[in-house]
Amino acid sequence: MIKVFLTAMFMSVMFAEKAMAEDAPITANVVQTNMDFLWTLLGAILVFFMQAGFAMVETGMTRAKNAINILMKNLMDFAVGSIVFFCVGFALMFGSSKGGIIGTDGFFLKGLIEDPWNLVFFMFQVTFAATAATIISGAVAERIKFKVYFIYSILITAVIYPIFGGWAWGSLLNGSGWLEGLGFIDFAGSTVVHSIGGWAALAGAIVLGPRIGKYGKKGEVRAIPGHNIPLAALGVFILWFGWFGFNCGSTTAASTDIALIAVNTNMAACAGAIAAMLTVWKKFGKPEIGMSLNGALAGLVGITAGCNNVSPYSAIIIGAIAGVLVVYAVLFFDQKVKIDDPVGAVSVHGVCGAWGTIAAGLFDKGGFDTHVVGVQLLGVVACFIWSFGLSYAMFKTLDKKMGIRVSRDEELEGLDVGEHGGNAYPDFGADYI
Amino acid sequence: MIKVFLTAMFMSVMFAEKAMAEDAPITANVVQTNMDFLWTLLGAILVFFMQAGFAMVETGMTRAKNAINILMKNLMDFAVGSIVFFCVGFALMFGSSKGGIIGTDGFFLKGLIEDPWNLVFFMFQVTFAATAATIISGAVAERIKFKVYFIYSILITAVIYPIFGGWAWGSLLNGSGWLEGLGFIDFAGSTVVHSIGGWAALAGAIVLGPRIGKYGKKGEVRAIPGHNIPLAALGVFILWFGWFGFNCGSTTAASTDIALIAVNTNMAACAGAIAAMLTVWKKFGKPEIGMSLNGALAGLVGITAGCNNVSPYSAIIIGAIAGVLVVYAVLFFDQKVKIDDPVGAVSVHGVCGAWGTIAAGLFDKGGFDTHVVGVQLLGVVACFIWSFGLSYAMFKTLDKKMGIRVSRDEELEGLDVGEHGGNAYPDFGADYI
Amino acid sequence: MIKVFLTAMFMSVMFAEKAMAEDAPITANVVQTNMDFLWTLLGAILVFFMQAGFAMVETGMTRAKNAINILMKNLMDFAVGSIVFFCVGFALMFGSSKGGIIGTDGFFLKGLIEDPWNLVFFMFQVTFAATAATIISGAVAERIKFKVYFIYSILITAVIYPIFGGWAWGSLLNGSGWLEGLGFIDFAGSTVVHSIGGWAALAGAIVLGPRIGKYGKKGEVRAIPGHNIPLAALGVFILWFGWFGFNCGSTTAASTDIALIAVNTNMAACAGAIAAMLTVWKKFGKPEIGMSLNGALAGLVGITAGCNNVSPYSAIIIGAIAGVLVVYAVLFFDQKVKIDDPVGAVSVHGVCGAWGTIAAGLFDKGGFDTHVVGVQLLGVVACFIWSFGLSYAMFKTLDKKMGIRVSRDEELEGLDVGEHGGNAYPDFGADYI
Repeated sequence: MIKVFLTAMFMSVMFAEKAMAEDAPITANVVQTNMDFLWTLLGAILVFFMQAGFAMVETGMTRAKNAINILMKNLMDFAVGSIVFFCVGFALMFGSSKGGIIGTDGFFLKGLIEDPWNLVFFMFQVTFAATAATIISGAVAERIKFKVYFIYSILITAVIYPIFGGWAWGSLLNGSGWLEGLGFIDFAGSTVVHSIGGWAALAGAIVLGPRIGKYGKKGEVRAIPGHNIPLAALGVFILWFGWFGFNCGSTTAASTDIALIAVNTNMAACAGAIAAMLTVWKKFGKPEIGMSLNGALAGLVGITAGCNNVSPYSAIIIGAIAGVLVVYAVLFFDQKVKIDDPVGAVSVHGVCGAWGTIAAGLFDKGGFDTHVVGVQLLGVVACFIWSFGLSYAMFKTLDKKMGIRVSRDEELEGLDVGEHGGNAYPDFGADYI
Repeated sequence: MIKVFLTAMFMSVMFAEKAMAEDAPITANVVQTNMDFLWTLLGAILVFFMQAGFAMVETGMTRAKNAINILMKNLMDFAVGSIVFFCVGFALMFGSSKGGIIGTDGFFLKGLIEDPWNLVFFMFQVTFAATAATIISGAVAERIKFKVYFIYSILITAVIYPIFGGWAWGSLLNGSGWLEGLGFIDFAGSTVVHSIGGWAALAGAIVLGPRIGKYGKKGEVRAIPGHNIPLAALGVFILWFGWFGFNCGSTTAASTDIALIAVNTNMAACAGAIAAMLTVWKKFGKPEIGMSLNGALAGLVGITAGCNNVSPYSAIIIGAIAGVLVVYAVLFFDQKVKIDDPVGAVSVHGVCGAWGTIAAGLFDKGGFDTHVVGVQLLGVVACFIWSFGLSYAMFKTLDKKMGIRVSRDEELEGLDVGEHGGNAYPDFGADYI
Repeated sequence: MIKVFLTAMFMSVMFAEKAMAEDAPITANVVQTNMDFLWTLLGAILVFFMQAGFAMVETGMTRAKNAINILMKNLMDFAVGSIVFFCVGFALMFGSSKGGIIGTDGFFLKGLIEDPWNLVFFMFQVTFAATAATIISGAVAERIKFKVYFIYSILITAVIYPIFGGWAWGSLLNGSGWLEGLGFIDFAGSTVVHSIGGWAALAGAIVLGPRIGKYGKKGEVRAIPGHNIPLAALGVFILWFGWFGFNCGSTTAASTDIALIAVNTNMAACAGAIAAMLTVWKKFGKPEIGMSLNGALAGLVGITAGCNNVSPYSAIIIGAIAGVLVVYAVLFFDQKVKIDDPVGAVSVHGVCGAWGTIAAGLFDKGGFDTHVVGVQLLGVVACFIWSFGLSYAMFKTLDKKMGIRVSRDEELEGLDVGEHGGNAYPDFGADYI
């Protein structure tokens, strides 16, 4: 007990000294640095929360019998993605590179963890990598094997996302990127994150084929409505909330720039929601909710590339066009080319990501410049070729090696039972399936 | 490829220069300004998230057959409100004004977007305007036409909210306000936001009349329970969470003042929840959840006006009184005067908003002053006359022009089918309605 | 009206002066202080939101007929806990103490509210106290009387949590603590918050006994699945989100330390989720969701003590071990010793809290030191004796005085009807029970 007292006394002295040290004058630069850490971490936290948003949107927009499966995919693509991006992806994206093609150092954050900036920057970037990964889960919902999705999550966060990401953003840390070298504008990732995810989702949906019952024998299209619309709406609100971190946090510095970015982000989302609602209202006679929710997301994806270099007026236009676009894109994939994408991920993230990237060139506050728009188009095309091409090859390979789709019986019964041995709503009776 | 390499090299030089520039000494004032932006934006983000809270509370507290309709109203009042407040409302509220009656410039943020402070301030304020708008949706739930709600959302964010708001808060930017000129205290909007919304909700509920089945032929009152209490509870937690941004963010500056505001906000909410629960427990024999949840909200609404000028002890008292008050107010509207307000919005926001505004005078840390309390009462009365009067006139006008209520058949079947062609929970069988 | 004009003019002058005053030079230390307030409050807000996470996890993982009861417990343990911690707990934990055993001043924050730092520090700490309290609710779910839970919430936030908390963290304000005097490491509360809650939960579960139907007459174990897995998954995402505030906010200062803490927190959660999933997959043939979700929480609990003094590599190992541990701990309590803990709270918070505390010693970046590990073990044992012993005595006493368990009929019908007179999902038919 005496020892305790003595130690306690010693501690008191230490604390007193610490208090005095804290009162020592510090420079404004140190405070700004601390704030940049705070802001970047806050952005990461908000973007992390988007995982909950994706989980709710995708669960709500699909059937009850597959709810556990979708939640597990969302949980695991983040968990696996974080570990894989830590080990491999971050190095390929931000490591030193010759010619801006591929990073070559920093695997397992080797040599990086000593500088806390690298850690907070990693924290921010890992949530972006996981966002790209999770976009796919909605498009391949209700029929992909869990094991395959697990493997694919590794591949996208280890290879597909980071290498392209390095082309556009590599110089943010130690690397460089050939696309950014050309002047490619993608402030927060309309292409780098959303289109990468969207085109990978397209590949997955094509290789898998449509869900049983989606298209009739005579080619008629059947709607398969989502089972829990309040959860889907909650998910969209969560995504919108997190998107402020996604776009504003991409400054990775606390500056007055965040004001314009936030206003642009919000106005585009609003315009997208309204435009999509009005489009579907006019087209089908009623303001349908699924399209309206996707309209908000479309506006958000659309403004992501240019949120820092367009005016609020342009943001409204960009968002509104995205809102109209997403409706026609969903109809195109769903009814024209008959690619079954249960939540519209390809349209929201792929198509509107491409639109947003081009729009960042078209509406650049610096004025219209054909060269700039050309580079934007180049980035959009490069993204499609890289992500769709590689993903298609990978899904095809996985399909040959192990089969990527669950059995017909399992699909009919629901993946919750077949893949996870569970039931998302056991108290509500078996009749909910 | 050579061009890519050269450009990349050029970029490297540029980035190196940028890094050096960032190390140049900055002043503490610049850092503080950056932090004020960060804080104000963070407040806006949190208040934005309250939209999800309102959506969940209102959806959970009403019937499954109207869930889509309520979610659409919540999504759209924010989307439409943001655009309208951008175009018109912000100017009327914060533009230059003679005599503090109405702002006359800054429409479409003209002349304002060049200064980033105006943008972040707008971002914060637009979430407040949308909060006022969304309060109404709960009171008019399960029977108002979607189109009418859409129009009303425009009117409240364009006219009703901003003009009154300018009276109390106009000088925060360029304007001035006659009420604040008199010394009116409403730090974060018990009156400006909550009562404005609450009294408009009262007008809507009166003009619409009660839901079918709410009151029997002999005047008996029937409870129409909400269909998803976990969502309603989640909504209250989200609102509470966002309210820290609502009240603490209203400093629009990162200072040590936020400590008192946060503690007051939290203690009042806790006291409100407990007081409401005990009141209903004593009165009806069981601690009912709907009233307990509304008690927390009542405490939050009650402390909003005075969160910066009362002590934590007063905050507990203010919250507890609000918690008791909300129970009796709900019973009064529901059973005495038979105004059907499905979620208790009038009681929570209207009545407790008025109470909080008066309490901000009564419990002022500076001491009790009859003049101050008189001005508070004046503000409360002015708010009621303005918001209830104008809203009543508008709902009446809309009712004459186009009818504001859905058909009897549609109401019985549910607005999800009639207004939106959807079903919130298709997998759970038709028997849920 | 003239008076209004004059006052308005006077106000304008005042505002102009205020604006000038704001431009007066401030020091970087003042700005840093403001930022420390901002950061600490932000941490508090995020930790507050964990209440929503606990509510959703516990509601989702239990039966529909008890949903209201669980939500009410979560709402009320926070509300009551805040008031009680304000009145008593904070003083016992952080008040001046002789020998670091118990604080003796600061009741009702007397003498403390004048300094805003005390207020923001209280705000942060009150959310921690409520977290400890709310952990119990899952373990005692579906059978404890609401009134008893209400009383127990008072006791844990008034006595059990704060006294132990003072031993480990007392010196953070005015107090001192005998455990911290010995060098006990528990940065954000693996022991102080989680084990305290977990061992109290164990006591409650033992005294209550298992739910009806959980164990057959021949000792066979029946699974009682949760009724709403999407809500449970949402809850885990919310908890993870809030945990960034829990761990990073525990610096109570905005510094570059938050980077390591955030990365460690996230990596441990990911490793925990994956490890638990793989363990259960191997053991039972399918990647079950409940265990996977608990694995993420186990990783988070496990890293909480050492998040600031271990490397990211160690964080991954700590989280992974926690993920394996939680599976075996759940099976041990559920099947070996037959203690019915509906959500696995004892395993997640008690066991993994203990593991995390020991791990903070084992993986200390400063190197392995048997003395350090010995102190960690001492803290773990002290926590168990204190929290389990006192909680057991209290539950036993309450059981004798008033009975702590609802009647058999009420348990079978559901506590929502019996305790609260409600039904969480009235529109979905009575067959959901």
